[in-house]
Amino acid sequence: MIPKTLEWKGGIDGTLEMIDQRKLPGTFEHLNCRTVEQLFYAIQTLAVRGAPAIGVSAAYGICLAVQQPEETEIDEILTQVKKQSEYLATSRPTAVNLFWALNRMVQFAENLVDDEPDTTPVQFREALLEEAHTICREDQQMCRAIGQHGAKLIRRQMGLLTHCNAGALATSGIGTALAPMYVAHENGICFRVFADETRPLLQGARITAWELAQTGIETKLICDNMAATVLRNGDVQLVITGADRIAANGDAANKIGTYPLAVMAKRHNVPFYIAAPTSTFDMELDSGSKIPIEQRSPAEVLGFGDCKTGPDGVGVYNPAFDVTPADLITGIITEKGIIEEPDTQKIVKLFEE
Amino acid sequence: MIPKTLEWKGGIDGTLEMIDQRKLPGTFEHLNCRTVEQLFYAIQTLAVRGAPAIGVSAAYGICLAVQQPEETEIDEILTQVKKQSEYLATSRPTAVNLFWALNRMVQFAENLVDDEPDTTPVQFREALLEEAHTICREDQQMCRAIGQHGAKLIRRQMGLLTHCNAGALATSGIGTALAPMYVAHENGICFRVFADETRPLLQGARITAWELAQTGIETKLICDNMAATVLRNGDVQLVITGADRIAANGDAANKIGTYPLAVMAKRHNVPFYIAAPTSTFDMELDSGSKIPIEQRSPAEVLGFGDCKTGPDGVGVYNPAFDVTPADLITGIITEKGIIEEPDTQKIVKLFEE
Repeated sequence: MIPKTLEWKGGIDGTLEMIDQRKLPGTFEHLNCRTVEQLFYAIQTLAVRGAPAIGVSAAYGICLAVQQPEETEIDEILTQVKKQSEYLATSRPTAVNLFWALNRMVQFAENLVDDEPDTTPVQFREALLEEAHTICREDQQMCRAIGQHGAKLIRRQMGLLTHCNAGALATSGIGTALAPMYVAHENGICFRVFADETRPLLQGARITAWELAQTGIETKLICDNMAATVLRNGDVQLVITGADRIAANGDAANKIGTYPLAVMAKRHNVPFYIAAPTSTFDMELDSGSKIPIEQRSPAEVLGFGDCKTGPDGVGVYNPAFDVTPADLITGIITEKGIIEEPDTQKIVKLFEE
Repeated sequence: MIPKTLEWKGGIDGTLEMIDQRKLPGTFEHLNCRTVEQLFYAIQTLAVRGAPAIGVSAAYGICLAVQQPEETEIDEILTQVKKQSEYLATSRPTAVNLFWALNRMVQFAENLVDDEPDTTPVQFREALLEEAHTICREDQQMCRAIGQHGAKLIRRQMGLLTHCNAGALATSGIGTALAPMYVAHENGICFRVFADETRPLLQGARITAWELAQTGIETKLICDNMAATVLRNGDVQLVITGADRIAANGDAANKIGTYPLAVMAKRHNVPFYIAAPTSTFDMELDSGSKIPIEQRSPAEVLGFGDCKTGPDGVGVYNPAFDVTPADLITGIITEKGIIEEPDTQKIVKLFEE
């Protein structure tokens, strides 16, 4: 069964239940967020991660923020919505979906107060919860649509390969890069997936391999430097990864290691697809060279968990992302359809539809 | 200072002292092997590793094997040499240098008994130790020669990149792939080295980064999937790796991850060199496709040390090596000189010289 990353339990006094991803793959445990502070900490410490899942969580966070005290007036609730939105926005400062979801909740609350000043506090809380549910549902629909478009690429007995985790656990639905696999699996297509472990944070080993295993899809875990061998051996017929940001020309930033994977796929004539919602496109960037690459802490490369892997005092270079040029991308799978051989013209056209 | 991997301490009753590489990079500690059983265990558990270092260790192992009892006759010593050689040969069943060094010691002992039957037991032991010292010296000279040839490729302010560990700690000298760097460093050339961590066993992080740090060469540790970014950024002007076996046409088997590294170097017009002694060539294989690739334990990919990284029950593919085709190799640095753009003809010619 595809794991359910997060779920609101109850009505306006409910709580946000989520899989505690910090404990995977060793322990499968739910975390129940009852306060906005608990949710903040959950986002900050990666109990919930993946841009879409963070966005949906933050929307529900606004619902947690307005639960106390119960007897507040609606303008006080609005003040609380704005204040806690600003607070939650600092939990992961670079997560675009986080800001987007929080802004949408604030906007919604402001409009409601403006348009329907006679709304009762309970009705206000109910409307906010309904809006969060809508954001969650839209995310799930987006995943499902990507899955349906992408599933057409998957044939019986294929070998697939993915990098990092753009799966169910990164969204509130069935994921992005893994969504086509889940839909194909539901349709009874039999295939096998190679999952890159994805150093340094090992999202492929800890999360992708774990969630694929929950669904019964045959999975083989490999180190990142083994993907070239798997491609050369002819064990893989399709590569699908996610993306963090896509420029207007189709250049795609994704987890470090995606670029060499795309080069190796091209060398061995294996189609390389990116799966991402249209919200991932940044049409203000005309090419990938303008995408800033975050440098992360040396500690990530110098070890894993409590295990030290590198010597004290050695220098470290730790870029979190790389950019795959559009000419290495066979197609981009979005909720609106697949853009084959992406370029600026085709991408602009998709947005016009 | 370049670390001294192993050293015989004393005369015929001496011991073999080695850096305990199992404890790097956390702890720098020497292990003193006093018996052939201790040495067997040291080789088996990777306290000493790297084909040349294992070969030299095994030669000294024969000297340990004939220390007790002291009053043995020379034909009994010869019997002991043969018996303990067979025993030591099982410590790492795929290490070609191990068999080579043991055979040489056995051959030497047989010739001595045949040619000089009046040799005393003490003289026999002295001659065996001298032969082991010769094997060690030859290994050191081989490393130094590779270093001198390869150092000509290194210019001031260059960035270099290496994979796995083909350094001092893999030999009894200054290494193979790292030898040119040590010679250039001794010559006062200033440069910087990027070291791939080399999953799954992390020899790059644990050993290469550590030994480079001992010498004061500026080193940056990266995950394997970051090499493509470093190459693309123009931070590297020369890649040097070792090799485990080289076919007659120049195709080279080396630690998994070397092949995609060579592809990325080619893509970014960075010269890619292999450094290896001529003993690495297997002239009976006309191409790399005939080199068997060892599959290793899933446990290596599922974790590191005590840290679990992958979920229980997931499948794993863990090839230990990959083969880099000769057309991606700019040159092979041997103790006899550099073979530029290697092919069968040039390699055969080198062996004829």
